Amino acid sequence: MDSIFSDRIADVPRSFIREILKVTLDPTIISFAGGLPNRALFPVEELKAATAKVFDTMGRDVLQYSTSEGFAGLREMIARRYHERQNLDIPVEDILITNGSQQGLDLMGKTFINEGDDIVIEDPAYLGAIQAFSLYKPRFNSVLLTDEGMDINLFKSVMSAKKPKLIYTVPNFQNPSGLSFSERTRHEMADIVRGTKTLLIEDDPYGDLRYSGRRKSSFKKFLPDNTILFGTFSKTVAPGFRLGWIVAPHDIMEKLIIAKQAADLHTTHFTQCILWQYMQDNDIDAHIRKIKECYGRQMQAMLSSIEKYFPAGVAHTSPEGGMFLWAALPENVSSRDLLDLALKDKVIFVPGDPFYVNRRNTNTLRLNFSCTDEETIDTGIRHLGQAMEELLKK
Amino acid sequence: MDSIFSDRIADVPRSFIREILKVTLDPTIISFAGGLPNRALFPVEELKAATAKVFDTMGRDVLQYSTSEGFAGLREMIARRYHERQNLDIPVEDILITNGSQQGLDLMGKTFINEGDDIVIEDPAYLGAIQAFSLYKPRFNSVLLTDEGMDINLFKSVMSAKKPKLIYTVPNFQNPSGLSFSERTRHEMADIVRGTKTLLIEDDPYGDLRYSGRRKSSFKKFLPDNTILFGTFSKTVAPGFRLGWIVAPHDIMEKLIIAKQAADLHTTHFTQCILWQYMQDNDIDAHIRKIKECYGRQMQAMLSSIEKYFPAGVAHTSPEGGMFLWAALPENVSSRDLLDLALKDKVIFVPGDPFYVNRRNTNTLRLNFSCTDEETIDTGIRHLGQAMEELLKK
Repeated sequence: MDSIFSDRIADVPRSFIREILKVTLDPTIISFAGGLPNRALFPVEELKAATAKVFDTMGRDVLQYSTSEGFAGLREMIARRYHERQNLDIPVEDILITNGSQQGLDLMGKTFINEGDDIVIEDPAYLGAIQAFSLYKPRFNSVLLTDEGMDINLFKSVMSAKKPKLIYTVPNFQNPSGLSFSERTRHEMADIVRGTKTLLIEDDPYGDLRYSGRRKSSFKKFLPDNTILFGTFSKTVAPGFRLGWIVAPHDIMEKLIIAKQAADLHTTHFTQCILWQYMQDNDIDAHIRKIKECYGRQMQAMLSSIEKYFPAGVAHTSPEGGMFLWAALPENVSSRDLLDLALKDKVIFVPGDPFYVNRRNTNTLRLNFSCTDEETIDTGIRHLGQAMEELLKK
Repeated sequence: MDSIFSDRIADVPRSFIREILKVTLDPTIISFAGGLPNRALFPVEELKAATAKVFDTMGRDVLQYSTSEGFAGLREMIARRYHERQNLDIPVEDILITNGSQQGLDLMGKTFINEGDDIVIEDPAYLGAIQAFSLYKPRFNSVLLTDEGMDINLFKSVMSAKKPKLIYTVPNFQNPSGLSFSERTRHEMADIVRGTKTLLIEDDPYGDLRYSGRRKSSFKKFLPDNTILFGTFSKTVAPGFRLGWIVAPHDIMEKLIIAKQAADLHTTHFTQCILWQYMQDNDIDAHIRKIKECYGRQMQAMLSSIEKYFPAGVAHTSPEGGMFLWAALPENVSSRDLLDLALKDKVIFVPGDPFYVNRRNTNTLRLNFSCTDEETIDTGIRHLGQAMEELLKK
């Protein structure tokens, strides 16, 4: 039967993470595996009020078919926030609303990738991007992430050897590593890309969730012609609305809109208008501060517990924001084996494997801290530390 | 700059219809061009009440990330309706919720079409399907539509010569023609497809909107292994929610879910739960009867006006349901020329061209009757008839 499928779909695995998440239905398990925002922080009442208003003021409009570009009011708000917060001047016409950033990845794949085209991703990389791009059968070139961002020498040599079509990067509090690019790395990368035909996708779902340090510059600032910006409301308001956006120059936007029409005509204006109304009537920045305060505390708790309980020889990142940190067991110790042990102690996480395009049985793991309170984090990390001790003794 | 784009996107035009719709912003123009449901019939108050309930009972759940397959409650309801209304037994696991049927087309393209694969479509065909499939670069084989459905001899010879991967059909009140497949054509086509590896996509957005005659059998009934069913709430409740679904056998569903995950993780559960709640608390069939009563009256008005005003030599279909009818000018008379004349009289429609994969400057046109009241229909058709007279005199 398999022969009936397209070549592109044949090799793409189901999302390993989404499979793991099924285990988390057991309430006695402490999960560091998810990538979910904390549901306790969703502004339910405010969104309910905004929704009632939308029904009263534009009920029939939001229930009708609408434009592929997205709701103008929301796009204006996004443009205004770029101006206010990052001093970026983005014309409203350069913003396309998508069903979360994930759809942005698919539309970019559709619009740019021919089979065999070279693209650059981080090592490790965001799993959803690997999955979305895989369908268009590119050649992945992964560039090692360091504490400063992509290894600049590797990046330089890939750029000159492969002249890639796309670079995909999450420069702020990356998923899965929690690492961020230094200001210097951003400038050096921009210098290398400037003047080439390569496009750089800056995916920035976590940029607003910074718990220490200062905001870094967007690539859009010093590489405006080559940079495609992705944003989302999933981490700041609610992922369930599935609202993200793409910022792209005019000639690229034209093609992205064609791809969007073919993909699903348009994103529902209902949720777009609710989000717009919510932002009209509420101080979203005050809401984001609440999220930051909570996640920041939980991240600190996780870092302290790691210091207490993880055995010597286990390395980890110390993010300045986001939702994840990343740990590395001693070389040749498999994080999948650790998962088997940890599951017995009712703790789960995501082993590093799915975040790589060409490595298996790795020693790395991703830990999420957004959904677990401080006490539970301490218990979970203690159990995980014990499982590590046990594994290292073997 | 063009060379940076993928081959697949280079040749796909922006939707001609969506471009025409921009003209309709002029309120003095009578538009038979749209494909929109009548906004006056949207159940705004009922949906508002359902939404408030959803916030109260599952607010945090619907705002969180959720499953790619879609909300189980809604899928159960869809399965139940298939059973009650068409005597089709569909397991809930065989139903995937999509962002409207349009996304179903994209997911099918992703999952099945390799470049150069043969697929069969109707002649004329649904424009959105041509657009969505084009991105995967198939070879289109169009089979002439007759009053009975696809021309069975042409269909038979395409099937045996090309062994196509997919057949795409809208057997009930097709867009753009308004034509339906007879029971006999359905059986004959099923006999030809049975036992082959070809999949038949039965897209059924209008099936519930029948104004005369009796419901015909779904292909799923006598061709269960090869049939993929598409459905949508766009024409019965609200297109703005962007909620459609695919019914597919288990082994195909597995791949479709991978494609859905890569495309946008999942469709928002917020709107799915609202629709479910709406259907719990209201009699959707009573609502559909109201729509049928209104559209049926408007269709009759259009047919009567056509009899009165269209010159001899202009043929047209007489649908039993749906939202469109189709007219043909005498051969070699261009419907684009007619549009130029009609625009001066402030009437618009969609010329046939975009509904064909390989014909240009055709003599056909699509007329929508769902959004215009009977008096306006009479005025508009009168003007259009006058424009035809004028054009035929030349």
